[in-house]
Amino acid sequence: MEKRRLYMDYSATTPVKKEVLDAMMPYLTDYFGNASSFHTFGREAKNALDKAREQVANLVNAKPSEIYFTAGGTESDNWALEGVAFAHREKGNHIITSKIEHHGILHTCEYLEKHHGFEVTYLDVDSEGKVSLEQLEAAIKDNTILISIMFANNEIGTVQPIAEIAKIAKKHKVLFHTDAVQAAGNIPIDVKELDVDLMSMSSHKIYGPKGIGALYIKTGTKLHTFVHGGAQERRRRAGTENIPSIVGYGKAAEIAKSNMENHVKNLTELRAKLINQILEKIPYTRVNGSLDDRLPGNVNFSFEFIEGEGILLLLDMLGIAASSGSACTSGSLDPSHVLMAIGLPHEIAHGSLRLTIGDFTTEDDIDYIIEHLPAVIERLRSMSPLYDQAMKNK
Amino acid sequence: MEKRRLYMDYSATTPVKKEVLDAMMPYLTDYFGNASSFHTFGREAKNALDKAREQVANLVNAKPSEIYFTAGGTESDNWALEGVAFAHREKGNHIITSKIEHHGILHTCEYLEKHHGFEVTYLDVDSEGKVSLEQLEAAIKDNTILISIMFANNEIGTVQPIAEIAKIAKKHKVLFHTDAVQAAGNIPIDVKELDVDLMSMSSHKIYGPKGIGALYIKTGTKLHTFVHGGAQERRRRAGTENIPSIVGYGKAAEIAKSNMENHVKNLTELRAKLINQILEKIPYTRVNGSLDDRLPGNVNFSFEFIEGEGILLLLDMLGIAASSGSACTSGSLDPSHVLMAIGLPHEIAHGSLRLTIGDFTTEDDIDYIIEHLPAVIERLRSMSPLYDQAMKNK
Repeated sequence: MEKRRLYMDYSATTPVKKEVLDAMMPYLTDYFGNASSFHTFGREAKNALDKAREQVANLVNAKPSEIYFTAGGTESDNWALEGVAFAHREKGNHIITSKIEHHGILHTCEYLEKHHGFEVTYLDVDSEGKVSLEQLEAAIKDNTILISIMFANNEIGTVQPIAEIAKIAKKHKVLFHTDAVQAAGNIPIDVKELDVDLMSMSSHKIYGPKGIGALYIKTGTKLHTFVHGGAQERRRRAGTENIPSIVGYGKAAEIAKSNMENHVKNLTELRAKLINQILEKIPYTRVNGSLDDRLPGNVNFSFEFIEGEGILLLLDMLGIAASSGSACTSGSLDPSHVLMAIGLPHEIAHGSLRLTIGDFTTEDDIDYIIEHLPAVIERLRSMSPLYDQAMKNK
Repeated sequence: MEKRRLYMDYSATTPVKKEVLDAMMPYLTDYFGNASSFHTFGREAKNALDKAREQVANLVNAKPSEIYFTAGGTESDNWALEGVAFAHREKGNHIITSKIEHHGILHTCEYLEKHHGFEVTYLDVDSEGKVSLEQLEAAIKDNTILISIMFANNEIGTVQPIAEIAKIAKKHKVLFHTDAVQAAGNIPIDVKELDVDLMSMSSHKIYGPKGIGALYIKTGTKLHTFVHGGAQERRRRAGTENIPSIVGYGKAAEIAKSNMENHVKNLTELRAKLINQILEKIPYTRVNGSLDDRLPGNVNFSFEFIEGEGILLLLDMLGIAASSGSACTSGSLDPSHVLMAIGLPHEIAHGSLRLTIGDFTTEDDIDYIIEHLPAVIERLRSMSPLYDQAMKNK
C-alpha cells in the first residue's frame, strides 16, 4: 500500500492549483520576456502583469494601481513597517503592534528599535488572541506614526476587529497596516470598506506559487521604497518582475474570489467536525483561538501532559503533515509566542498541534485524523510522567 | 509565414532552459511543502533547497553556507549595501561605487545618502567603462566602509578588474561587494581566488526562473539582515523559501558551470561576427565598451544621427527583440547613464542599440540581423535632418 500523504498544514503553504500552474506555464516557456522591455516579448509580459494586478486588486476590492507585487508576505511586512517608519520619522518614532504578530512584523519592529531609534508598543491580547480596542487607543501618543495589527493569526486563526482598529487609527490620524497573509483569499476582505492604509498579502497561502506577494498601498499613502533600483512597480519596488509567479498569483486570486463562499462554507463545516470530534474523543484538550472569529481552515489544539514535537513525529509516521505552530520559527525550542500571549502555561503551550485544512481536504481526511489522533495522544501520554502524576492525583 | 521571434535581449532576461523547468516541475506539483516544516513534505523541500545551494555555490566556488537566496539580483544589491552600511555605521559612513553601476546599486546609494546620512563617491570610468585603480585607491578614506563595483556592465558588457579591486579593498581593510548579476554563470568566477566579500547573483540571466537570486557572503562578513522575520536562510533572510525557483536556479547554475567553456567560446565567436560585419556594413558606427574584457554575449553599438527608439521599433517589426540599454530604466527618456559616463555625447548615446545573445542564438540569427540592420539604420538616417546636414557638410 502506498504511504498516505495527508497534508494538514495549509497555513504553512498550499499546493499550487492546476488552473494556476496552467496559467503560469506559457510564461515559463514561450512568453519569457522582461516586462520592462520595449519589444514584443516585453509587451507580452507587461500585458500579463497588468491582468494579474487587476485580479489581485479585485480579490480585496483595491484599485489595480494600489497593488504592488513583492517577493512575498514577509517582504510586504518589512516594506510596510520600514517604509512608513523612515518616511514619517520627522513626525514621530512610535509604532504600535501586538504580541501575536508574525515574526515578519515582530523582528522588523525589533530591528527598528535596536538600530534606528524607533519605539514600539507591543499590545497584549486576550485569551482568544484579540487585541483590546481600549488598550490600543490608550497606547496612541503624539509621536505614533503607525499601527500594525494582523488580520488573522497564523497559529490560532483568530480574526481581529480590523474595521474598528482602522476607525481608531483614522480618528488619531495614524497610518494602519494589517498583515493579511493568512486572510487575503481565505476570507472576504474589502479594503475600501475596512479603510486600511496598507495590507500585506501572499500567494502561496491561497494555492498560488511561492516567492510572490503584494502590498496594498492606499492611494496617497507616503512610504519609502524598500527595494531600490529600476522603474518597476511604478518606481516603488525594483527588480525584474517575476511574471510567471505574478500570473499564477493573479489566477489564484481570481479563483479565491469566485470560490470564496464555497471555500468558507466547506472548511467551516470540516473544521467544526474536526474540533467537535477531537474534543469528544480526547480528554484534557483545549482549542486555542476564537471559536467565532476564526479562519475557516484553522484548528489549534493543546493536549495536556505531552509535547507537540512527539505528536508531529507520530502523525508524520501515519502520513499526516501537521505543525505545532508557525513554520517560520521551526528550529526553535521556545514555545509559541502566540500561545504564551493568550496566557497558556509553558507546559500546555508545548503540547500544541495546529491542523490547517484547505480546498483539497476531504471528509475522508478528517475521518482519518479523527480515527488516529486519539491513539497518538494516548501513546504519548502513556509515556509521560506528568500524565502519570496527574492521574494519580485525581 | 509565421512571424519570426528572434530574441536578442538576453541581458534583460533569458528563457528558462527545458532541463531547468523539468527540475522545477515536481516542486510546483507534488513536492510543494514549506522547507521550514517539520514533516515529510517539509523535508522533501529542505533536501531540494540544500542541493540547490550546493549547485549555486559550486558555480562560483563558494561554500554552500556562504550562499543566501534572495528574490533576485536587485534585492541582493540592496541587501549588500544597506546591510553593510547599517552594520558598520560606527566605523564610518563612506561608500565608494562607480557611475556605471546598475540602478539597484545607484538608487540604493542615493537612498542611503538622502535619508540615512551616508556619503557616496561615484567613480568615473574610462572610455571603455573601466574604473581606474589609482582613483579608486585615492578615494578611500578613514571612514570608508564599503566598495561596490560591478563585475560586468549590463549595457556595454565591460568586465572590471575585480581581483585588483579586491586587493586594494583588502589592503585598506574595506569590504568589497560586486554586482555579478550579468557575470555569474556567463563567465568563470571564483570568489575565493578573487577574494570578494559580497557578490550579487541572479537566476533569470542564466536560463533559470525569474524572482530568485543569491547573495554570496564570505564567512565572517558582518552585515545586517535586510528582510526580517522567520528563521530561513540561517536567520539572515526571512520569508518562505521559494523552492521551485530555487531548484530551477540550482539547475541553471549547474548547467552554466558544466557548459561554461562552450558557452563562452560560442558566444564570443558569434559576437565577433556580428560586430565585424555590422562595422563593415554600416558607416558612422561605434562599438561601446571594451573589446577585450567583455561579456561574451554583449554587443553595444552607437549609430550616429539617429535615435535608439526608432531602431527598436523597426527591429521589432522584423521580429527582432533588442534594447537600447537596461530594461530596468525603460520608460525614461534620458540617455543611458552608462553611455554618458564613458563620454559619449548626448546625441550619440541616444542612437545606441544593445544586442545581447545567448545559448539559443544561432548563426542563422546572426545572419538575419546582419542582413536587416543596415536597411533599418539607412531608413532612419534617410529621415534624419542631422544626417542630411552631416552629409552636406562632408
